[in-house]
Amino acid sequence: MDSDAIKGHLTGPVIRRLSEYLLILDKLIIEEKEVVSSRELANNYGNNASQVRQDMFHLHHTGAQSHGYETRELRAAIADALGLNVYKRLAILGVGNLGRAIAMHVPFEDYGMKLVAAFDIDKNLSGSSISGVPVYHTDNIQKVIKKEEILLTALCVPAEVAQQSANQVISAGVCGILNYSRTRLKVPKHVAVHYEQIICSFMQLSCQVQHKKS
Amino acid sequence: MDSDAIKGHLTGPVIRRLSEYLLILDKLIIEEKEVVSSRELANNYGNNASQVRQDMFHLHHTGAQSHGYETRELRAAIADALGLNVYKRLAILGVGNLGRAIAMHVPFEDYGMKLVAAFDIDKNLSGSSISGVPVYHTDNIQKVIKKEEILLTALCVPAEVAQQSANQVISAGVCGILNYSRTRLKVPKHVAVHYEQIICSFMQLSCQVQHKKS
Repeated sequence: MDSDAIKGHLTGPVIRRLSEYLLILDKLIIEEKEVVSSRELANNYGNNASQVRQDMFHLHHTGAQSHGYETRELRAAIADALGLNVYKRLAILGVGNLGRAIAMHVPFEDYGMKLVAAFDIDKNLSGSSISGVPVYHTDNIQKVIKKEEILLTALCVPAEVAQQSANQVISAGVCGILNYSRTRLKVPKHVAVHYEQIICSFMQLSCQVQHKKS
Repeated sequence: MDSDAIKGHLTGPVIRRLSEYLLILDKLIIEEKEVVSSRELANNYGNNASQVRQDMFHLHHTGAQSHGYETRELRAAIADALGLNVYKRLAILGVGNLGRAIAMHVPFEDYGMKLVAAFDIDKNLSGSSISGVPVYHTDNIQKVIKKEEILLTALCVPAEVAQQSANQVISAGVCGILNYSRTRLKVPKHVAVHYEQIICSFMQLSCQVQHKKS
């Protein structure tokens, strides 16, 4: 079975957990922990060892030693499964509070991505920079995205302009959109959209609280 | 089968989709659309009619008419399943760019929640307000959370202080945490944590793009 066939089997929830295990592993590696058991990883994550082992079956990994997984080796296998070894250039659309938070606090370079441009409709922001990255006016979206070979875009714009913004970045070559706007997008088949609508996260939390109480 | 038994069957992915259908329904209701078929809903969402119908089986709903679902009735049934009819009071911890974005742009009141307080360690922010909500110094977390009967908290603080902040709000009575900090939390069994680590969303997008290309 080749790499793509294995990756093809990853479901959304598995991909999500793998990305979260990666953060835990990075913490363990900083703490100079060389080996971690599925039980310890589950204990850190808040699930159980059996689910951790199931998730790890999806990886190109020699499997757990009797004493556990090598942290660095497991980190590399997860990064490979998530496609983080194929470096991707990224832009943020909309430099409001959310766009700003993402530009300033998300450690893209540790996870196979590089933020290279930001765009805003506010002309006062054009020519400024955020986290060392230039802010362009939205008039320049197509030109800059092509020139900078940007593949991924975080959409932090109001719902009313989200579809139009998506169309612009897609026609310039973007094939992955992280959509924070409160609207669904129509995109061509070759484009991936990952939805993160903040109010939906709160609704999911509200529902979890309800379950705990019932 | 009573309401709790039904709700008990909702898995994470179903809950997530229901919250997202709700946003679509709200858009349709604003457009004065009274009935929607599972096919139309799926077309808006970007999945298929069979999954929509499966998801709707979980609801207290009389089921689709031959011509489709009544939009308002379906909205009410989803809100009920997600526990949005039991009003919940909410606080934001950390008024940086992310906390500010949430306070200013998330329409809590349309979804059964009310933002009543924000906290920050920066003394210069104490006494100010954001979106009409007072900002308190973190020294007052316990007092304010008890007094305001706050049930949910969005954690928008650095990873280093996330566990300590979680402990504080939990001991004051919070039982649901939306965790944006890049760390896993240890919480008592009665507390729900919903993780939204922004870098993980980007990793999931990166992986989806990889799938599309392979």
